[in-house]
Amino acid sequence: MAQENLAVVVHSPGDLRLENLPIPEPEPNEVLLQMHSVGICGSDVHYWQYGRIGDFVVKKPMVVGHEAAGRVVKVGSAVKHLNVGDRVAIEPGVPRETDEFFKNGRYNLSPTIFFCATPPDDGNLCRYYKHSANFCYKLPDNVTFEEGALIEPLSVGIHACRRAGVTLGSVVLICGAGAIGLVSLLVAKAMGASQVIVTDLSPERLKMAKQLGADFQLTVKKGDSSEQLAKSVHEILGAQPHVTIECTGVESSIQTAIYATRSGGVVVLVGLGSPMTTIPLINAAVREVDIRGVFRYCNTWPMAIAMLSSGKVNVKPLVTHRFPLEQALEAFETTRQGVGIKVMLKCDQNDLNP
Amino acid sequence: MAQENLAVVVHSPGDLRLENLPIPEPEPNEVLLQMHSVGICGSDVHYWQYGRIGDFVVKKPMVVGHEAAGRVVKVGSAVKHLNVGDRVAIEPGVPRETDEFFKNGRYNLSPTIFFCATPPDDGNLCRYYKHSANFCYKLPDNVTFEEGALIEPLSVGIHACRRAGVTLGSVVLICGAGAIGLVSLLVAKAMGASQVIVTDLSPERLKMAKQLGADFQLTVKKGDSSEQLAKSVHEILGAQPHVTIECTGVESSIQTAIYATRSGGVVVLVGLGSPMTTIPLINAAVREVDIRGVFRYCNTWPMAIAMLSSGKVNVKPLVTHRFPLEQALEAFETTRQGVGIKVMLKCDQNDLNP
Amino acid sequence: MAQENLAVVVHSPGDLRLENLPIPEPEPNEVLLQMHSVGICGSDVHYWQYGRIGDFVVKKPMVVGHEAAGRVVKVGSAVKHLNVGDRVAIEPGVPRETDEFFKNGRYNLSPTIFFCATPPDDGNLCRYYKHSANFCYKLPDNVTFEEGALIEPLSVGIHACRRAGVTLGSVVLICGAGAIGLVSLLVAKAMGASQVIVTDLSPERLKMAKQLGADFQLTVKKGDSSEQLAKSVHEILGAQPHVTIECTGVESSIQTAIYATRSGGVVVLVGLGSPMTTIPLINAAVREVDIRGVFRYCNTWPMAIAMLSSGKVNVKPLVTHRFPLEQALEAFETTRQGVGIKVMLKCDQNDLNP
Amino acid sequence: MAQENLAVVVHSPGDLRLENLPIPEPEPNEVLLQMHSVGICGSDVHYWQYGRIGDFVVKKPMVVGHEAAGRVVKVGSAVKHLNVGDRVAIEPGVPRETDEFFKNGRYNLSPTIFFCATPPDDGNLCRYYKHSANFCYKLPDNVTFEEGALIEPLSVGIHACRRAGVTLGSVVLICGAGAIGLVSLLVAKAMGASQVIVTDLSPERLKMAKQLGADFQLTVKKGDSSEQLAKSVHEILGAQPHVTIECTGVESSIQTAIYATRSGGVVVLVGLGSPMTTIPLINAAVREVDIRGVFRYCNTWPMAIAMLSSGKVNVKPLVTHRFPLEQALEAFETTRQGVGIKVMLKCDQNDLNP
Repeated sequence: MAQENLAVVVHSPGDLRLENLPIPEPEPNEVLLQMHSVGICGSDVHYWQYGRIGDFVVKKPMVVGHEAAGRVVKVGSAVKHLNVGDRVAIEPGVPRETDEFFKNGRYNLSPTIFFCATPPDDGNLCRYYKHSANFCYKLPDNVTFEEGALIEPLSVGIHACRRAGVTLGSVVLICGAGAIGLVSLLVAKAMGASQVIVTDLSPERLKMAKQLGADFQLTVKKGDSSEQLAKSVHEILGAQPHVTIECTGVESSIQTAIYATRSGGVVVLVGLGSPMTTIPLINAAVREVDIRGVFRYCNTWPMAIAMLSSGKVNVKPLVTHRFPLEQALEAFETTRQGVGIKVMLKCDQNDLNP
Repeated sequence: MAQENLAVVVHSPGDLRLENLPIPEPEPNEVLLQMHSVGICGSDVHYWQYGRIGDFVVKKPMVVGHEAAGRVVKVGSAVKHLNVGDRVAIEPGVPRETDEFFKNGRYNLSPTIFFCATPPDDGNLCRYYKHSANFCYKLPDNVTFEEGALIEPLSVGIHACRRAGVTLGSVVLICGAGAIGLVSLLVAKAMGASQVIVTDLSPERLKMAKQLGADFQLTVKKGDSSEQLAKSVHEILGAQPHVTIECTGVESSIQTAIYATRSGGVVVLVGLGSPMTTIPLINAAVREVDIRGVFRYCNTWPMAIAMLSSGKVNVKPLVTHRFPLEQALEAFETTRQGVGIKVMLKCDQNDLNP
Repeated sequence: MAQENLAVVVHSPGDLRLENLPIPEPEPNEVLLQMHSVGICGSDVHYWQYGRIGDFVVKKPMVVGHEAAGRVVKVGSAVKHLNVGDRVAIEPGVPRETDEFFKNGRYNLSPTIFFCATPPDDGNLCRYYKHSANFCYKLPDNVTFEEGALIEPLSVGIHACRRAGVTLGSVVLICGAGAIGLVSLLVAKAMGASQVIVTDLSPERLKMAKQLGADFQLTVKKGDSSEQLAKSVHEILGAQPHVTIECTGVESSIQTAIYATRSGGVVVLVGLGSPMTTIPLINAAVREVDIRGVFRYCNTWPMAIAMLSSGKVNVKPLVTHRFPLEQALEAFETTRQGVGIKVMLKCDQNDLNP
Repeated sequence: MAQENLAVVVHSPGDLRLENLPIPEPEPNEVLLQMHSVGICGSDVHYWQYGRIGDFVVKKPMVVGHEAAGRVVKVGSAVKHLNVGDRVAIEPGVPRETDEFFKNGRYNLSPTIFFCATPPDDGNLCRYYKHSANFCYKLPDNVTFEEGALIEPLSVGIHACRRAGVTLGSVVLICGAGAIGLVSLLVAKAMGASQVIVTDLSPERLKMAKQLGADFQLTVKKGDSSEQLAKSVHEILGAQPHVTIECTGVESSIQTAIYATRSGGVVVLVGLGSPMTTIPLINAAVREVDIRGVFRYCNTWPMAIAMLSSGKVNVKPLVTHRFPLEQALEAFETTRQGVGIKVMLKCDQNDLNP
């Protein structure tokens, strides 16, 4: 019944629970959402397993989930652009302060930003959730809730490709064929990349990359020389990539990324590994290969919706598993085991459709 | 026989002839090409009809043609990257001086640039033609000569879309569905535009735009109000275009382009009309709608070849007519009448294939 | 006494009054300011004389003034970064909605933005004024209130030079030596312009330009040919300007701006004239001279304060007249007559210092 | 006598000689120069001491020197823009091929570029030297030969600041107060930086930085913690630098550069150390601090001449020692010992002026 607000909550490392929380009341600038579809991200699993990511530590119980879409069920008094019944995708980061980063259009870098399921901020893997209306985006009829939820990982790919400057005719190397590598592949192709090669340890993942449009795949073995892998990339492509999007965070893969990239090109770091990393910095510097990180994304939802609605990008194949919210622990276990690509939780008992 | 070098030559307004010229000898940095396919451009017809375009006046007989591809038959002594037998596309503009524009990567703006079929420089609508090897680009096996020739008009679209900043999710208005409007459409879609609307006076041309991927078409009538047309564009799109690519050069259409474009957006002027133009400049200025022209293109051939080879862009439907070189006058008449889109002349008597 | 809030109010064309208004109460995100120095802008005079600028019409009495600095006397409950006693410069534009423009860092283009002294929004030429704390910037001790007030016109120059891409070694033409032309001159030099030439009808204004650092001056006469003026600019500079900043809005001057600018350069339109303008658009287009307007500014206050505090820019000579707030009508008459450069109103009876 | 062409030649590690070489004959696109002033660069000393830098190995005797200015004494047949008697500054890098890098305006990245005093290409520390006329830039009368020679190191600063995006109001950290750190300082200020802080081990070098315009200096001690140094930088500035220009190549200094730079900012790597470097890559990545190298420079001479001629940048204090060409070995020893900043060799026996 509507009074229940079942939520998935991390209490401490290894302690993930399904709990009933109060249904929140939206502030004037907020909307209350009945959640429909929420994807599980690697970071959600990480908080469950380790209770922290870097300096972000779970000190009090935290609702997980930040890849989400739902339906507006209550509208704050100051909200103009949304109405009850609207289907929306949720951008999980909401700047709290109008600081220099927000004013400059890079609000993702605002140090005080609210972000779903990053301690101490609660996520939205629950039945009812309230959010800043300015960061809820109405979905067109031809975009499903699940596609709406997938805009979050898709946004990582958009931001990475945009920071990389992928454009018409770009030759692109993507290191890693996990969910982020795959969305980067989709976006790179949609932005005009002519050739995309994807590397991974797992031939199965590379098979998926191929299905999603990768022009070439390269299976990596542990212990492979970075310089040799770079050469293999060049041989397969018959060219050097303009852009490399590194999605593994593994030191040797970052090294490969640098060696492989064309002079004057860009390496974008999406995957994160250990705090200190040893890289061929001079090789990058004297060839003016820029090294750029990404922190989440900003200004991606409208263009992502445009792409999904126009059919330019198809993210549907990314969803390989679905569970009702009540089976969240099973769903998390599935993600933890690295099975499939994206596990989707269905939060609306009356509508389990995509 | 090989000693013949049949060429299409403009002598004066209205006087276009088929003539036999000597076969040129390549300089050390040049290659001699046996021409295969050469498209007719509106400017070729204009030189034939009027003997001039703006300040460029035909003062001595000039070979026309600049949309071309051929086969290398002789290689200058200093050329390293090309061999006899290579199939190449020709970039018709070759900077003569290493001036500030060339050094800065905008060699198209170099005032002393050589350019095929712009007086006094001869074009390449003939049997044998020599060209700077640095501006001949080898075609992969899966790209035809005709596709190679079409890189020239395609480059106009690439340069326009690049100057416009078309990117993922861009909403684009293209004014004019002639050859340049259509290649701009192809390129905008390949660069990630989510919605493209094309306008034209001719429903038939708009039909072709639809076939090539336009999301919307708007038939314009002479006398339509520019402001009203802009509103129609907004209504059809449900949004304001980020980018407008104006390919007609007609004053009222330029006005429509400005009114229609979203604040902070860009109008790119590709079509050229009369020297002085009356436009709603304040409307553009206070909404920070940038107005940018294009002069031909630079640095487009490699990415165009990459797009054609990877199948990301399909220009083949643009060729609606083919004539052997011997029937060049008939071919020019066809273009003059505005029938079809692109007329292709076949210069190799032994290979009339695309 | 503190209860009084003397303000300068436009009622209708020609009707400017000094009136006592209630002292406002700051909202949680606002601060109440005791105004210190407010400059008079041409737009303030225009609203007084004509009751409108374009589509912005004075329909109810409106306080004028938007070049302002003051002292914080009350702090809203949610404000963290300001305290009572802080001296601040006021950015007059405050976005009301978190729309696409605000999120993208171009909040000046937000169509619903609040802007001081633009109908129906009141300005700050008064004793007490409340404003969004996020758009009040603390002044360092070595920056005076008047310098703080001058950040507003300085920001127009910053935004114009930034949009123009002025950089090290730029050669710059500035059309018009009024207040905006002069601040553009100061900013262009501070950004590294090697040569700046300024044009104006008035030799006196050009004298001031010279004093502020102009390398060359060119006196224009009504009826001078635009093309001839452009040639004169080239002869004086021994080069073509990379950038032209047009501050007059006069059609012939805009034409000169286009003819004068180097291929590949930029014309920035700051001055505004009549809605429809006739310009040599093809000349600009085929030389890829970009035409860019500016609408106010965004993200300029912090860098302006940095420049003033470090002494890199000296705006003090711009203030040629000062009046106490009580003599506002006299001050407006002075500005209306075009005497001097900037008239400053002193709103704090106890502190008439700069 | 004019037939002699005294030159400074490296034969092998430790073996630097003064030798008489033939006077070269200019090709059609070249000019012959009588050298006037040539600065000694650290790389010249390095080739003398070690016979190599990275993969560039002195395999046959090589003339050193690449910071140079001279007078045209003979003009190749195809040269139009230079005449005998012209005083010119020499850009030492001349692209050999019209490859993708040259066409794109980044000719410094062309792998086959000719570069003075980089094996196997001879430098210009001699009496007579021939060079591509397109890469010789005429000096105005008010720019001395020595200033002309100093354009080379100045260009490194220009390219670094340009790649860093230094602009109006930038707060800049420069690591290292050697010649390159100092020219970066000069350029950063000229581009509008409001605050520049310079670090070095040597208080004497920092004293020179202060004289050249540094706002703050920070003396570093070996063993200082990188994170602590970053904090000191923040405390001194009262802010985080937008840009850090790292000129030491020391690993700990590169680490400081990353920790110190503001989120969304840029670290430019100018100094080069060991091939593999351990850095806090995640810290940079998640704060979107871009890491960009520089390889020499491109397109800097014209703007450098503009800055010197207009007096915006004063490089004269950088020259601390002068030697006639005959005393080149003594001059090299002076540079080797790290005394002073820039040692200038005077190659024209009849004119030892700056």
